[in-house]
Amino acid sequence: MTNELLELISQLPLFESLPRSLVKKTLNGTLPMVVPRGKSIALQGDRAGSLAIVLNGLIKVYRLFPEGKEITIRLMQDGDVVLTDLGRVGDISYNENYEVIRDANVIFIGKAHLQACMAEHPELAMAMLSVVHTQAQCLADEITLVKWQYLPQRVASFLAGLDPEGSGAVKVRLPYEKTLLAARLGASRESLSRAFAELRAIGVNVQNMVVAIDDLDRLREFSETSSHDLRTRCEGK
Amino acid sequence: MTNELLELISQLPLFESLPRSLVKKTLNGTLPMVVPRGKSIALQGDRAGSLAIVLNGLIKVYRLFPEGKEITIRLMQDGDVVLTDLGRVGDISYNENYEVIRDANVIFIGKAHLQACMAEHPELAMAMLSVVHTQAQCLADEITLVKWQYLPQRVASFLAGLDPEGSGAVKVRLPYEKTLLAARLGASRESLSRAFAELRAIGVNVQNMVVAIDDLDRLREFSETSSHDLRTRCEGK
Repeated sequence: MTNELLELISQLPLFESLPRSLVKKTLNGTLPMVVPRGKSIALQGDRAGSLAIVLNGLIKVYRLFPEGKEITIRLMQDGDVVLTDLGRVGDISYNENYEVIRDANVIFIGKAHLQACMAEHPELAMAMLSVVHTQAQCLADEITLVKWQYLPQRVASFLAGLDPEGSGAVKVRLPYEKTLLAARLGASRESLSRAFAELRAIGVNVQNMVVAIDDLDRLREFSETSSHDLRTRCEGK
Repeated sequence: MTNELLELISQLPLFESLPRSLVKKTLNGTLPMVVPRGKSIALQGDRAGSLAIVLNGLIKVYRLFPEGKEITIRLMQDGDVVLTDLGRVGDISYNENYEVIRDANVIFIGKAHLQACMAEHPELAMAMLSVVHTQAQCLADEITLVKWQYLPQRVASFLAGLDPEGSGAVKVRLPYEKTLLAARLGASRESLSRAFAELRAIGVNVQNMVVAIDDLDRLREFSETSSHDLRTRCEGK
């Protein structure tokens, strides 16, 4: 593993609080694997024998039901971790599908090796606890948003989150296709279009993947009457 | 602490895999506190200096927003744990309010003591990881349900879950008031009433807190066309 790569990995949320030597030991010489778009890094029901760390790319986490219905739970991006129950001994299965939407570099660390490292270095277990806790908090944020905001506000939050530092008139680029965006926001493609149409009234114009926002502050205000800063924790990177 | 109490605590999900001596050390002689209905065990924004373990009772976890809007995220019952980011050093705040709905017995364990125990006994950190992971999975289940099921199905799942072993004609008792049930299911009190009205067509009759179900298998089938066994993991106790 090159020093550059080690440097990159050491800055991920899971590792940032840990000494470089422990990061190296945990990685155990593993190299990132390229997982191309369309492939999955894990499938619902698969035995979960490793922890996957997403270095970059975009991964859709979803559940499939017998009738073929698919529910998107969240999206994973740089630094996110595919978590399984590392505290449990024995066989564990994945509860979700992890499909690569944009070519990804993923590091897989075997569960047994990771457990051994955690037992020897409690600070790794603590870092892991922190990451799992953040993930649980992001899911709670998601529940709050789904239960609370009406769709145009969720869309407004999302758009405003794409340019957290911006102000006034800005253009942002949608980070992924509208169908995936709709799934991400828990809506149908049609409802998303209607939400975009509603947002036109406050100066939001969508042209393919580019969104022109007349007044970002106004959009933020519209979204913040309900959403506050929930998004920042999970998508503000 | 009596042996009987220690026995009870040792059987909680957090402790069941651990040796009795470690449970005792972790508890550090702490006794359960009675927290009466209407009181809160923690408030959004409070400094989180301890882990709270709910021995029994019912606790509503919700977020408050400046406009006074309240969103219920989940309910906590016997054995559930109020989690904060135990992996992080320094000040941490609660992200939610925890209001006691039914008199609760709660054990509070100081964060510093807990962190010291985890550092010395990695198996405690692993058990904690397992508990946080289960909680994250329950939240993901919740997202799936909120995004997917229409309300009458969510109500049907909930009712069927109250008598998981039953069959045919049964009566079940609602475990808490309808206003809380509505909040729990992410609905208004009015929508819940409409859902109950819809369920009448498949033989569900509500009289105050008692629900008469003509055919539990039919109700289960109605709910399971969408919900499967998600509920069992989080509410099947």
